[in-house]
Amino acid sequence: MYTESLVKLGKVRSEIREIFEYGNKRKAEIGAENVFDFSIGNPSVPAPKSVNDAIIDLVNNFDSVALHGYTSAQGDAKVRTTIANYINNRFNTEIAPDNIYMTCGAASSLTIVFNAIMQKDDECIVFTPYFSEYGVFLERTGAKLVAVKSEDKTFQVDMKGFEAAINEKTKAVVINSPNNPSGVVYSVETIEKMCDLLRKKEKEYGHPIFLVTDEPYRELVYDDIEVPYLINYYDDTFVCYSYSKALSLPGERIGYIVVSPKMKDAGDAYAAVCGAGRALGYVCASSMYQRVIEKCIDDTADISIYKVNRDLLYNNLTEMGYECVYPDGAFYLFVKAMGDDAHEFCEKAKEHELLLVPADSFGTPGYVRISYCVQTKQIEDALPAFKKLAESYQK
Amino acid sequence: MYTESLVKLGKVRSEIREIFEYGNKRKAEIGAENVFDFSIGNPSVPAPKSVNDAIIDLVNNFDSVALHGYTSAQGDAKVRTTIANYINNRFNTEIAPDNIYMTCGAASSLTIVFNAIMQKDDECIVFTPYFSEYGVFLERTGAKLVAVKSEDKTFQVDMKGFEAAINEKTKAVVINSPNNPSGVVYSVETIEKMCDLLRKKEKEYGHPIFLVTDEPYRELVYDDIEVPYLINYYDDTFVCYSYSKALSLPGERIGYIVVSPKMKDAGDAYAAVCGAGRALGYVCASSMYQRVIEKCIDDTADISIYKVNRDLLYNNLTEMGYECVYPDGAFYLFVKAMGDDAHEFCEKAKEHELLLVPADSFGTPGYVRISYCVQTKQIEDALPAFKKLAESYQK
Repeated sequence: MYTESLVKLGKVRSEIREIFEYGNKRKAEIGAENVFDFSIGNPSVPAPKSVNDAIIDLVNNFDSVALHGYTSAQGDAKVRTTIANYINNRFNTEIAPDNIYMTCGAASSLTIVFNAIMQKDDECIVFTPYFSEYGVFLERTGAKLVAVKSEDKTFQVDMKGFEAAINEKTKAVVINSPNNPSGVVYSVETIEKMCDLLRKKEKEYGHPIFLVTDEPYRELVYDDIEVPYLINYYDDTFVCYSYSKALSLPGERIGYIVVSPKMKDAGDAYAAVCGAGRALGYVCASSMYQRVIEKCIDDTADISIYKVNRDLLYNNLTEMGYECVYPDGAFYLFVKAMGDDAHEFCEKAKEHELLLVPADSFGTPGYVRISYCVQTKQIEDALPAFKKLAESYQK
Repeated sequence: MYTESLVKLGKVRSEIREIFEYGNKRKAEIGAENVFDFSIGNPSVPAPKSVNDAIIDLVNNFDSVALHGYTSAQGDAKVRTTIANYINNRFNTEIAPDNIYMTCGAASSLTIVFNAIMQKDDECIVFTPYFSEYGVFLERTGAKLVAVKSEDKTFQVDMKGFEAAINEKTKAVVINSPNNPSGVVYSVETIEKMCDLLRKKEKEYGHPIFLVTDEPYRELVYDDIEVPYLINYYDDTFVCYSYSKALSLPGERIGYIVVSPKMKDAGDAYAAVCGAGRALGYVCASSMYQRVIEKCIDDTADISIYKVNRDLLYNNLTEMGYECVYPDGAFYLFVKAMGDDAHEFCEKAKEHELLLVPADSFGTPGYVRISYCVQTKQIEDALPAFKKLAESYQK
């Protein structure tokens, strides 16, 4: 009667949501300051002042009918020009406004690109750990997700495993760097190796294999790490960008797709993106927030707090004996579950009022995700609990 | 390589867009005041003051992290409670907040509902004239659009044609009242007849046939016309509502779905809606605009201007000899093309600097759509041109 796979999908309560709601219950019981909730990936710093200033300026001074009216489906031309100029200056690319399509954030960027390029039985490679919604988005296109296990401990790409996974059905590869949930950033060398391999395979199979880069965490990197801009390394690239984390606007749903101008038949690729957006019901991204982006193009939220949190959490947890992946970016610490069972470990953590997320749904059983997009004080206050949890395994 | 149907879709320049751009060119040539553009269905009145006040209040006084953060996928619980109460008070229904799912406007409401209920080879009935995007949205689900011709001249439902179109594959019927582009509103009697027929057919075929009501124009009715609230007439109803026209916010993409609580397995239906939203990449509707709706729940833009425009245009055009459908709602006048060929008629209209839209793509060849969401002065100034156009056919 109803679409069965979607009924099922709609009924699955996300594990993260369950933990979040347990947290709220527990906070009511013992006081919010005594519960250490590290479950949610919601930015903990406000949007920069420039965002609110831009909104107020637009509302007060921009013609209402134009401000809140439809933009063209691919986004306002002036906004796309501003974004193209910004990208070109920063990454030395030659992107035109008509290579850019404004979207309602990263999830819609991904569904639009997947619908534009993936057909039934095509395969899309992702690397563990990966955002589980990739599978949800791909399923509706009839394509198949193929998970390639990353290297142990470092969670860098296992090039042999990657090569073995590519076959003639491979249509796309998703790169999510900085990675949710591992925080890993791929180096230039890694990217070059991956792209060389893909070019070789494109020739071998006689059709393009697209790189889809999922980049909501691009701006969240620490220690002067460079995140390679994929369009400069590989022609058949779609960039899926979002301002959710960069400007702390996750609920406003604003981002964009770049279709590399060097892609084979780039005009068709862009048309497929426009067609997919239309078929999925995306009329245009919020007209007001498009213009907010235009005004705040080179600003970010104050993300320095995330580095403070990362250092505090990483240094203390490794010292306590936890095995942690060193996160170059994003706002997650990826930690091996003591005792190896992530669910058991998270249950035990709850006894110490620590709310962590088992990473099984990211394709990496035995690991947990700790979101450090929280107040620094929460980390400081939680350290004794982390210590007790570790000790309970070291007895 | 790319999804062919979507490449094609992305390349089709909409006819309305073509006319719009011709209009811009022509305005540059002869002055904007000499071109009478009736092509675009963009509200011409600003959002009410309460909307801008709400935005500024939220930005200044609401916690930024909460204001711009994710809401739950189905929408903020307080916002949904406000909407449910509003609907219940107005239409005497018993809708719960958990029957409501916040969306990015009518197009996304429709794609989500279609994905939730339509499977491959299912049929969905629409009545001419109909919004051509219905076909685009349905195609991605694998379902088929079945167009039922409405009664000549009145464009009311032809009940015999409707009954003949229903078969065991019929899964849904779309009602768009007030209608784009005819302006027709279905009376209580019409709705009752349709629902009786559908209940009979549900029994005959042993499965539900869903009513999907596309309601962006619900508030735009004149002369104290009542638009029946379908949930009170038929249990298996999905309401697809949008604030685009009511609050003059088409570019902000905000609306909702109501899953009738009386629907068979309403819990599964709601789960299918949630699952579809997730699979299509809709994470949540804009968190800020959800709260704007909460604050402006019983306001509308000043739509009185549309009635002034309708009367002016309808009265003058019928007097000149045009055959017009009397529009009870929306902001379109649906006019029979003199000479019967709508494209030819629109080309001829251009000679008088009148920009009209041929309605062939709405499934009604021989008719044109005249959008009267324009400044009243434009209509006054255009009347002599309409008169000359009519005279050119009456010679």
